[in-house]
Amino acid sequence: MTPGRAAPGELRVGLLGCGTVGAAVVRLLRTNGEEITRRTGRVLRIVRVAVAQPDKSRGIVFEPGVLTGQAADVVADPRVDCVAEVMGGVEPARTLLLDAIERGKSVVTANKQLIARHGPEVFAAAARAGVDLRLEASVGGGLPVIQPLKESLAANRVSELWGILNGTTNYILTKMAGEGWGFERALEDAQRRGFAEADPTEDVDGHDAAAKLAILATIAFHAPVRADDVYREGIRRITPQDIAFGRELGFAVKLLAIARDRDGRVEARVHPAFLPVGHPLAAIRDELNALFVRGDFAGEVMTVGRGAGGEPTASAVVADLIDIARNRAAGVHGRVGWGELAPRPVRPIEETASPFYLLMRVTDRPGVFARIASIFGEEGVSIASIVQKTRGHAADIIMVTHTTVETQMRRVLARLEQLDVLHSIRSTIRVVGDV
Amino acid sequence: MTPGRAAPGELRVGLLGCGTVGAAVVRLLRTNGEEITRRTGRVLRIVRVAVAQPDKSRGIVFEPGVLTGQAADVVADPRVDCVAEVMGGVEPARTLLLDAIERGKSVVTANKQLIARHGPEVFAAAARAGVDLRLEASVGGGLPVIQPLKESLAANRVSELWGILNGTTNYILTKMAGEGWGFERALEDAQRRGFAEADPTEDVDGHDAAAKLAILATIAFHAPVRADDVYREGIRRITPQDIAFGRELGFAVKLLAIARDRDGRVEARVHPAFLPVGHPLAAIRDELNALFVRGDFAGEVMTVGRGAGGEPTASAVVADLIDIARNRAAGVHGRVGWGELAPRPVRPIEETASPFYLLMRVTDRPGVFARIASIFGEEGVSIASIVQKTRGHAADIIMVTHTTVETQMRRVLARLEQLDVLHSIRSTIRVVGDV
Repeated sequence: MTPGRAAPGELRVGLLGCGTVGAAVVRLLRTNGEEITRRTGRVLRIVRVAVAQPDKSRGIVFEPGVLTGQAADVVADPRVDCVAEVMGGVEPARTLLLDAIERGKSVVTANKQLIARHGPEVFAAAARAGVDLRLEASVGGGLPVIQPLKESLAANRVSELWGILNGTTNYILTKMAGEGWGFERALEDAQRRGFAEADPTEDVDGHDAAAKLAILATIAFHAPVRADDVYREGIRRITPQDIAFGRELGFAVKLLAIARDRDGRVEARVHPAFLPVGHPLAAIRDELNALFVRGDFAGEVMTVGRGAGGEPTASAVVADLIDIARNRAAGVHGRVGWGELAPRPVRPIEETASPFYLLMRVTDRPGVFARIASIFGEEGVSIASIVQKTRGHAADIIMVTHTTVETQMRRVLARLEQLDVLHSIRSTIRVVGDV
Repeated sequence: MTPGRAAPGELRVGLLGCGTVGAAVVRLLRTNGEEITRRTGRVLRIVRVAVAQPDKSRGIVFEPGVLTGQAADVVADPRVDCVAEVMGGVEPARTLLLDAIERGKSVVTANKQLIARHGPEVFAAAARAGVDLRLEASVGGGLPVIQPLKESLAANRVSELWGILNGTTNYILTKMAGEGWGFERALEDAQRRGFAEADPTEDVDGHDAAAKLAILATIAFHAPVRADDVYREGIRRITPQDIAFGRELGFAVKLLAIARDRDGRVEARVHPAFLPVGHPLAAIRDELNALFVRGDFAGEVMTVGRGAGGEPTASAVVADLIDIARNRAAGVHGRVGWGELAPRPVRPIEETASPFYLLMRVTDRPGVFARIASIFGEEGVSIASIVQKTRGHAADIIMVTHTTVETQMRRVLARLEQLDVLHSIRSTIRVVGDV
């Protein structure tokens, strides 16, 4: 068969990038390609691959003429029916994808940053051009989240999404809880095992989870939600002490991503949270990711899986390619569209409410408890439990409040900090669920 | 708009049955229909509904001419584009669906029994006629399992499926563990709350889970697997004592459904099993269902949700209808086909292997331990842990073996039963995972 002509049922794919994910896509098709064809009647053929250095050996042999250093050549190549973008980064990925879409090509992207920042623009371009755009791999690697939202749960109004969307921080928190390690030591371990980058900011400060949540909220609520709309706190301040006290209270700590559709506004936040140890998310260990979706008819649906890594991400990219190949064979484009997005205001974190866990160190002398309790009482914050642990002349006070509006809690914290008997507020962690 | 003519983008649905699921489908479309149309551009319109007693009031008002007592009329009605079968039972559902397919209509079914027994026949008929056949609701209610297997994980070879596929038994086991109740009391509670039928055989003896597993294994392994191919043990024999001893050993008990593709043969079984308490399935409580799928590239993916009930099941039925409406609007049929099934031999339970938990009551006198242990040794079964609890003149011995082939274990049990010092073998429960 000549490279210039597509066989019936064939999808000719141009790959932008051949790093961890791209190489895994090639490997997947070489491993399972025949089986995929046997099952689906569709052939996925990689006809062009753009890489930064075509001469560099990468352990994968391509036929002559497949590799190129010019990504634009792949997009422009008339033999390419579908562009699969696995290069990452906002530019030139954005320009290349928009160019492919304008040329009437279907596109698959694994690019979280691009979609979190320019999703609505890319969706609109695909809708205008009537081409297929699929982006399962942009969130949660091998974890199916976007297809379920757009298809399996299409009959529902989705009111809420929450889960663990970052594997690096979940690995770190699992190690801290299991081994009693501090944050730094667990981070070093994650770096050594390849679960964390040399610069871990993106993961540990919650940027990665916020970008994923923005994409999911945009799709679930049919409203543009940008990563910047997501309130964000990372896990650097979580200590082994918090984890130990949490355990005594029956809690496990997780970095949660939560988005809600509330009275016409969108609430979106990423922060550490205590969960009851029996909660299904508490059992999500190591680098696994998990997402809950609440639909008005389906109820709560949770999906768990490997949220990153070359192979799981390649599984998602190739599933999208198979879908596009099915459409192409049937002569359809844009079958599952991206609809219209209706902008909605963001509900600020100050208005959200949850129980809070507080750990503070105070001078251990009579009357301290009463002074602290009276501040909570005057600000209308109700205390669910309080434990004191004496440490020499000081004492650690661990409190859990009933559900409290964020602004109320902030007023309490400001007033506590004025107390002469308070050494420090060591931690405040939101609690998920009723206390 | 006249009932005789489909508007553009409209799918005219004929509903077979209007019980719990059918009524929820009608309610869902009345609640979310406009929103679904706004998002997808497709209109789902129920034009005929077949019920056993059209005169019976069912709290839902239909326009005149919609209700009929003749299911065959719905199938034959030229205004019906798509037949949604939510009546249950094998006949007449099978004949009606095959008739609809032969007439070139797309079909949606929520019928587990029908697909577990006649799936391959229905798949082949749909493939021959080139129509869409969707059956998400036939397994696991609102839990998306079939679409993920056929689409999100389409790039993978699936080697294994396992999970909790029956909500009634999971509710019963959750109550037994949480409240310390015996099986009968937990069953009565489940019946009172509507989670169990008056005749609970279908659920508690594992028939329901076996039928679901057969459907999932057929789809995952592309091989016909019938409910009768599934080895089956129910939960009637689980006692509060097993649950308490299991807890001491760090285990939770669940009714597991497990299917594997092993060396060209299919292994499929439903039985109670002990899981480590930290295992994600141990956190699946009450009437929830959960399914793990292992793909060669995606790794392990788990889905959790409400596996039964009118509303979750309606969510799945309507998702399938939306998919068909999208196809119809695009002028495609059979886009995601059912492929060819290649029969494969069943691997008998005797060849499977797992650790075992054993609870036996013996006479409490010197030498008993040694006699028991020597039987295990002679049969090549390695013991991981052993605990004795004295009860008057008798003792309970709790043993956990290392991984043992089923036939080996049966030989051990047969020899133990010959021992004069053995009062009874009270329980044998398979353990999942390494010990």
